[in-house]
Amino acid sequence: MPAHTHRTAPTRYVEANGVRFAYRRFGQKSGDTVPLVFNMHLNGTMDHWDPAVTDGFAQNREVVLFDNAGISSTSGDVPTSVEEMAANAAAFIKALGLAEVDVLGFSLGGLVAQELAIAEPGLVRRLVLVGTGPRSGEGMGARYEKPDDLWLAVFFTLSERSQAAGRDYLKRFRLRTEDRDPEVSAKVAPAQIEALSKWGAPRDNPYAYLKDIHQPTLVVNGGSDVIVYTVNSFILQQHIPHAQLILYPDANHGSQYQYPPLFVRHVSTFLAGRDFG
Amino acid sequence: MPAHTHRTAPTRYVEANGVRFAYRRFGQKSGDTVPLVFNMHLNGTMDHWDPAVTDGFAQNREVVLFDNAGISSTSGDVPTSVEEMAANAAAFIKALGLAEVDVLGFSLGGLVAQELAIAEPGLVRRLVLVGTGPRSGEGMGARYEKPDDLWLAVFFTLSERSQAAGRDYLKRFRLRTEDRDPEVSAKVAPAQIEALSKWGAPRDNPYAYLKDIHQPTLVVNGGSDVIVYTVNSFILQQHIPHAQLILYPDANHGSQYQYPPLFVRHVSTFLAGRDFG
Repeated sequence: MPAHTHRTAPTRYVEANGVRFAYRRFGQKSGDTVPLVFNMHLNGTMDHWDPAVTDGFAQNREVVLFDNAGISSTSGDVPTSVEEMAANAAAFIKALGLAEVDVLGFSLGGLVAQELAIAEPGLVRRLVLVGTGPRSGEGMGARYEKPDDLWLAVFFTLSERSQAAGRDYLKRFRLRTEDRDPEVSAKVAPAQIEALSKWGAPRDNPYAYLKDIHQPTLVVNGGSDVIVYTVNSFILQQHIPHAQLILYPDANHGSQYQYPPLFVRHVSTFLAGRDFG
Repeated sequence: MPAHTHRTAPTRYVEANGVRFAYRRFGQKSGDTVPLVFNMHLNGTMDHWDPAVTDGFAQNREVVLFDNAGISSTSGDVPTSVEEMAANAAAFIKALGLAEVDVLGFSLGGLVAQELAIAEPGLVRRLVLVGTGPRSGEGMGARYEKPDDLWLAVFFTLSERSQAAGRDYLKRFRLRTEDRDPEVSAKVAPAQIEALSKWGAPRDNPYAYLKDIHQPTLVVNGGSDVIVYTVNSFILQQHIPHAQLILYPDANHGSQYQYPPLFVRHVSTFLAGRDFG
């Protein structure tokens, strides 16, 4: 039987915290890899991940996509705080029987991933933060991601090369035609935006919490992120005790979708941790 | 006959611009690689490069080390401007008969590399800027590197892990015992510091010149560089049109000596340019 891919992996369900979580799990474990759990951005479902990224990782490790509480195929309500979203993610991962995972979070999912790493130091081995920022980050709290038809504008820059990469991403994004996730309900965005606003609100010593992220961390972003300003990635690297930063050229909020093979190579090198951590 | 390495490559000489340049050239060309020319920091000679880095690159490409004018085994005087240093570097590369090279510059060598890329767009294919900064960068102009016995302090952080990596670097640094470069004369530092001061002096629109670097560029630094503050690497990435940034964790000015295999892997991926540029 051929191995499942992003396109063919069946949607499965697991109960935890009173929520029925929808997820897909695929990929070939090799060496000492642990599953890589993906945390999605605002208004996104499992089908918003790029198959070039997920299948890229699936060559050498298990990949777990899921809808957090209240999103698409998962039951329950979207909580109005990042902390509660992280608690739901932890419950989901434990319900799968996983004792140790690597965690990747994109944008809002990156805030959830930070909280998850702090709350569950034994569960989270390594952390990958993509297009995201710290509490009270620059320009955070007031901004939020725009709806689906603006992906080209928010994930890619205005350059011809970046826009072409964006059109390729949108094609890949639609490759899975069966058993797709439903788009999120109208209730999702307001709750997520409330959580984002709380996270982004000004406070004293906003970056102090980052010293509690003890996992080796890779921070990735486009050099021209207009949604979560790129400087926030620099701030994350400067304040997380053991963090590496990679910024890609001519790239906006969706840099991992612009350079998928390079992104997979960089993250895989980091997750293998041969050189530090 | 076995291929030469950092340790065994003979010092050779070539004349250009009225200067007799000392250089070493070794490594195996593979695929469409072009030679990688290294530009050294203040007070450094060819023997200050880390064999783990140079021999790492030499697996797949030709590596060229050289002393710029007035340094160690090379004749002439150290010019008091970065522009003149870059003109000497260009004359040296052309005297070798090379039509296209990749250029790596570390610290002061990174300033020379920027100028070289701008002045010689046809000669320089790709650019790697390590532990360096822009004109009028943050904290630049007033600071300079400290003498040899302080390498552990300026290249590495105070953490146990970084200091241990530093001691390993100092051992590798001394592996070449025959035909070593003489240490630089007392005339070198004052001229280099004058050039650094001119470069770092405040001016209007200091970063505007960076838009003239048309080569794909990789900027690398430690996340805690106390010699050329890390934020300067972020500034370079933000202003060079097609630049990628990598910052390493728990690393100071000598991050490439702290993580040599990872650095070689990242730079080699960039120089191969499969994904952009």
